[in-house]
Amino acid sequence: MTALARLILNLKGLPGIGEKSAQRIARCILRLDSDDAFALTEAIVQARTLTRTCKRCGNLTEDEVCSVCADSARMQNEICVVQEAFDIAVIERAGVYKGLYHVLGGALSPLEDISADELNIAGLLERVRAGNIKEVILATSATTEGETTALYVAAQLKGSGVRVSRIARGIPVGADLGLTDEVTIGKAIRGREILEGGEQG
Amino acid sequence: MTALARLILNLKGLPGIGEKSAQRIARCILRLDSDDAFALTEAIVQARTLTRTCKRCGNLTEDEVCSVCADSARMQNEICVVQEAFDIAVIERAGVYKGLYHVLGGALSPLEDISADELNIAGLLERVRAGNIKEVILATSATTEGETTALYVAAQLKGSGVRVSRIARGIPVGADLGLTDEVTIGKAIRGREILEGGEQG
Repeated sequence: MTALARLILNLKGLPGIGEKSAQRIARCILRLDSDDAFALTEAIVQARTLTRTCKRCGNLTEDEVCSVCADSARMQNEICVVQEAFDIAVIERAGVYKGLYHVLGGALSPLEDISADELNIAGLLERVRAGNIKEVILATSATTEGETTALYVAAQLKGSGVRVSRIARGIPVGADLGLTDEVTIGKAIRGREILEGGEQG
Repeated sequence: MTALARLILNLKGLPGIGEKSAQRIARCILRLDSDDAFALTEAIVQARTLTRTCKRCGNLTEDEVCSVCADSARMQNEICVVQEAFDIAVIERAGVYKGLYHVLGGALSPLEDISADELNIAGLLERVRAGNIKEVILATSATTEGETTALYVAAQLKGSGVRVSRIARGIPVGADLGLTDEVTIGKAIRGREILEGGEQG
């Protein structure tokens, strides 16, 4: 096997990267100048060495506690529950949420054999039990696994006295209604907002 | 900047990899076990060190001459002209072409300021002039740049006595006709094949 074939094979070993992506990335890597190539391998090693998970919420950090948890200006009584640490960056970019996070580390999946024990639900319950939490926002994905997980976590929080909410499912901004699947349209209609100017129901 | 942010930045530096892909790949890299991570960085270094271009056709190889050029069983009188060395692997996978290749190293592009001097057209003309070539198949992309390059190379080969052909443009196999653009449909209709059983024109 050539070194190039081995590189493509290694790239394909990354989950979610298929043959075509691996080839495209390998092609890019071959074209890098030496400095950039060194910077890339260095960055891989450094990121893996320095990155760890926040002991409070599971976010990615280089310290004991992540920048969100360490920020006393954030609302300390709201927890947004996400499947993966990377989801936090996505929500932060939207810039509308100012509370804390909690990373489950996945979603319930009978198919992939991921049960509730493997998710950090106990940690969430503990944080809620410790008091001071007013609302838990379930921001798991709008997939079967994400929905199941949201329902499961909501059930676990029953009786805890906190408000439990689920992010809205609907037509993605910029999407063509005609190309949207009927389940999403159903969710979008049931979750519709009343607009000002109309009758306020 | 965190080491993770730096890794994402380095990945985004690879042409064709945007913010989302970079994040997805970084996430995969963080999840690798140590052996796989080491294998990946090792593979990057090795592929860059060992891979070079075939001095005859420009294909990627670890030797002076690539495996296609070194294979005397291949048709020595056909040259398939491609933009990039990686295109050769794509054509080889189709398994229908048994001749030689020639890599131009890009396509003519006024926008990206790539002129004919930067493509290995001289090398192709030399190979054709050296004799023994019966057909040159122009397998550049079906983009404006690819088409322009094919026309340009064809013009350069005029009077050389070799047959010059262009790969067919048409509906991709598996594609929905209703979702195919009209330029492709135009090409597909003009390039139609007569089927057996019908009148043979």
